[in-house]
Amino acid sequence: MEQEIIMMNWRMAEGGMDMLWKVAILTASDKGSRGEREDTSAQVIRELVEEELHGEVVEYRIVPDEVNDISASLIEMADYFQADLIITTGGNGLAPRDVTPEATMKVIDKEVPGLAEAMRYAAMQRTRKAMLSRAVCGIRGKSLIINLPASPKGVHDHLLAIIDQLPHALYAVSGNLSSADEFE
Amino acid sequence: MEQEIIMMNWRMAEGGMDMLWKVAILTASDKGSRGEREDTSAQVIRELVEEELHGEVVEYRIVPDEVNDISASLIEMADYFQADLIITTGGNGLAPRDVTPEATMKVIDKEVPGLAEAMRYAAMQRTRKAMLSRAVCGIRGKSLIINLPASPKGVHDHLLAIIDQLPHALYAVSGNLSSADEFE
Amino acid sequence: MEQEIIMMNWRMAEGGMDMLWKVAILTASDKGSRGEREDTSAQVIRELVEEELHGEVVEYRIVPDEVNDISASLIEMADYFQADLIITTGGNGLAPRDVTPEATMKVIDKEVPGLAEAMRYAAMQRTRKAMLSRAVCGIRGKSLIINLPASPKGVHDHLLAIIDQLPHALYAVSGNLSSADEFE
Repeated sequence: MEQEIIMMNWRMAEGGMDMLWKVAILTASDKGSRGEREDTSAQVIRELVEEELHGEVVEYRIVPDEVNDISASLIEMADYFQADLIITTGGNGLAPRDVTPEATMKVIDKEVPGLAEAMRYAAMQRTRKAMLSRAVCGIRGKSLIINLPASPKGVHDHLLAIIDQLPHALYAVSGNLSSADEFE
Repeated sequence: MEQEIIMMNWRMAEGGMDMLWKVAILTASDKGSRGEREDTSAQVIRELVEEELHGEVVEYRIVPDEVNDISASLIEMADYFQADLIITTGGNGLAPRDVTPEATMKVIDKEVPGLAEAMRYAAMQRTRKAMLSRAVCGIRGKSLIINLPASPKGVHDHLLAIIDQLPHALYAVSGNLSSADEFE
Repeated sequence: MEQEIIMMNWRMAEGGMDMLWKVAILTASDKGSRGEREDTSAQVIRELVEEELHGEVVEYRIVPDEVNDISASLIEMADYFQADLIITTGGNGLAPRDVTPEATMKVIDKEVPGLAEAMRYAAMQRTRKAMLSRAVCGIRGKSLIINLPASPKGVHDHLLAIIDQLPHALYAVSGNLSSADEFE
């Protein structure tokens, strides 16, 4: 914890802008992509990211619940926008059109199962329904990708459950820890 | 919860028989398939399904612990019998002949890891041995597939841990929720 | 539990040496493989294995954080040294060089997700950072493979969380339970 704070201070001292994590938000929603639904969940993510994580939202998109649309957006957010953190909302459930976890699995190099487990476990303390979240978390290159549910409440519960560990996670993913071992 | 009850009532009002979930039970057991063991676990599943879930058992089989036998049965139960819910018992452990999770992985389109996590976590409150359950839960087409352990006690503990969420899960899988989002 | 003790006594009565589990330890560490770091974590594993599990360390290696080096060592430890239990330390985190879970996935026939979940859950009671462990547990042939974190404390927390279930697990993996069902 101390070490994390030291790293953070050191990075902040290094140079202005890059102390901010670059964050991309991807909403998977058929209705949303047709403009039939206000995207409150993305706003909740934006607020949490800015206030709790000192992140800056560099890209935001809504796509329909299609594997290819979601995968292509994740790849662009990671490889072109070089987002440190990509957060998705929606498409995590059990309905036929829910394919966000499958689209995520297609583009990640490594899975981070403990983040998904911790989100579900914490969210289940409020609603047992959280056991039906199929969220996947993983790494593509130097980007951490996290699936969140569709509803604003679900987004809030899931993200708060892990947000304190994200700075450490993002430093590791970005390769800015001299050795991940020291922090494990 | 309220929404679920409303949906349930609406569906019951719609038409008699189809308010019942169609359930298939598959026992993976070398001994059982040779008739050398009474299949008490399948009976426990049948009772829980009928009493707690308003389900109707439309197909029941015992097969040996072979990947191909298990996979073929799961496919037939999903695609031909169109079971809403397929519950397996047995073959979840660490012994060389335990292959039910592998057979399940072969036939599902999507994994539902939170159901398996919730079963193991709840079952561990009674017996720490539950951490050795390799149960997989997933979706094939419009069928939800759930692996349970071999013993009657294990079956009971695991199934009770998730049964309250199964109506919602089955509505979503069957495509009968206008939007999964509202329930997430 | 009783049954486990009966099996254990029976096996001890059967014949001297084979009551000991054969254990192999694999450290994945770039620094360690260059001799730049003392391998305290491997020592912690050795002590726990000998004292709590009646295991005998038959092979120990340090390799750099490379998928091929780790995979090749796991295969040799399983197939040539016929270790009942292979424990890795290091390379479980989110840094670019952390690839132990990927190397493990490449060589296992079956995953045992409940062991990894139980380790993370228990370790999180001491440090929330444990949600970032990407540990995988699985079976290759008759060998159980378990990933542990890099730090001595992490190793200790993770291994203690499951060590009471390892005798049962190892009996099952080795094929020495007449039926895994009785124990499930």
